[in-house]
Amino acid sequence: MKRLSAPPTPPPFGTDAVNVLRYILFAKTPMSAEGNGNGSSYARVILQQCLSARLMVQPATESEDAEYVQIGRGLIVYVCFLKGASETMIDKMVKSVLEARLSEPTDGGRLVSILDLPGDVMIIPQATLGGSLKGKVMQYHGNVQKDDGLRLYTQFVEKCEKTVAIANVKTGQNSIVRYGTYGNRQVFSTETNGPYTHYIEF
Amino acid sequence: MKRLSAPPTPPPFGTDAVNVLRYILFAKTPMSAEGNGNGSSYARVILQQCLSARLMVQPATESEDAEYVQIGRGLIVYVCFLKGASETMIDKMVKSVLEARLSEPTDGGRLVSILDLPGDVMIIPQATLGGSLKGKVMQYHGNVQKDDGLRLYTQFVEKCEKTVAIANVKTGQNSIVRYGTYGNRQVFSTETNGPYTHYIEF
Repeated sequence: MKRLSAPPTPPPFGTDAVNVLRYILFAKTPMSAEGNGNGSSYARVILQQCLSARLMVQPATESEDAEYVQIGRGLIVYVCFLKGASETMIDKMVKSVLEARLSEPTDGGRLVSILDLPGDVMIIPQATLGGSLKGKVMQYHGNVQKDDGLRLYTQFVEKCEKTVAIANVKTGQNSIVRYGTYGNRQVFSTETNGPYTHYIEF
Repeated sequence: MKRLSAPPTPPPFGTDAVNVLRYILFAKTPMSAEGNGNGSSYARVILQQCLSARLMVQPATESEDAEYVQIGRGLIVYVCFLKGASETMIDKMVKSVLEARLSEPTDGGRLVSILDLPGDVMIIPQATLGGSLKGKVMQYHGNVQKDDGLRLYTQFVEKCEKTVAIANVKTGQNSIVRYGTYGNRQVFSTETNGPYTHYIEF
């Protein structure tokens, strides 16, 4: 959970073992002093299986209808970047998401990756995932700045597209990647045969 | 994130400051020695807003059709209990979930809780949420035993039902709580105007 991270700040102690122990016992994590308030993870991803999914990518205007994208059987990927996230994480994130063996093949055998299924991918930017509940209010102090978030999201989408395109050549299938518009309201519907929701921190 | 927990095991050191520092720098969390492999949280919840949702609670048999429950505008609550979870957590969890101000009132004003919206609640048991990705394989070693999970899930559902019933008396509305069958495949579909996905650990 703490990969790609700079070493944490040493605790505020000299050689006083009591202080050290106090630090260990009561510090939220060893990195809390300089973390982003989210346990020093830099991205959060939620994965769900679907039979179909549909997402608005452009709201309606006075002159035009709303635009939607949709996928068939596949994987829904909600993604949120937190403070400290960097592009060096993207390859590993995409690899984890697309190679994790979480999809049920039609013949009911062992779980396979979405690339091996093969299936479609829908990526949904979801800044709310970075929230941290304080009392009754959700706070988003840990979220990455919006322009950094857009840059990382774009890289994540592009890497997913490339990876699926390469897999398509191998499988001879034509799996698609669709994705939401960063910063938009993600008007969304899905049908599942069991979402098998998974949560991954990077 | 580490409430309701026994104090962590002190690190394996005598008075050797180098060992202490090594422990602090490289231990995943101060509690990793005795944790459940999930950063010592005891439950994971994902919240999503919906316009409607539909869930299978009884699969079809030879003689009978599948049974479904559904809700209108409201909150979807995916819940998973991890090792170390206990019933003393339930009240706090339900309070957090039902009182968190995450729902958009129809008039577009400040976010309110699902109780204040008021809206429906759909609870979905989701053991997969306890998973931890190791390489390409998801492991569920941190999950609570199945019978404990069923007991906690049942208590969680009952407390939600009671809390919504009390709120209904106050608001004069008739918001409903619907929930999935523990251990079943959660065949599920939803329509949202933006899921505003949130993740909470207890």
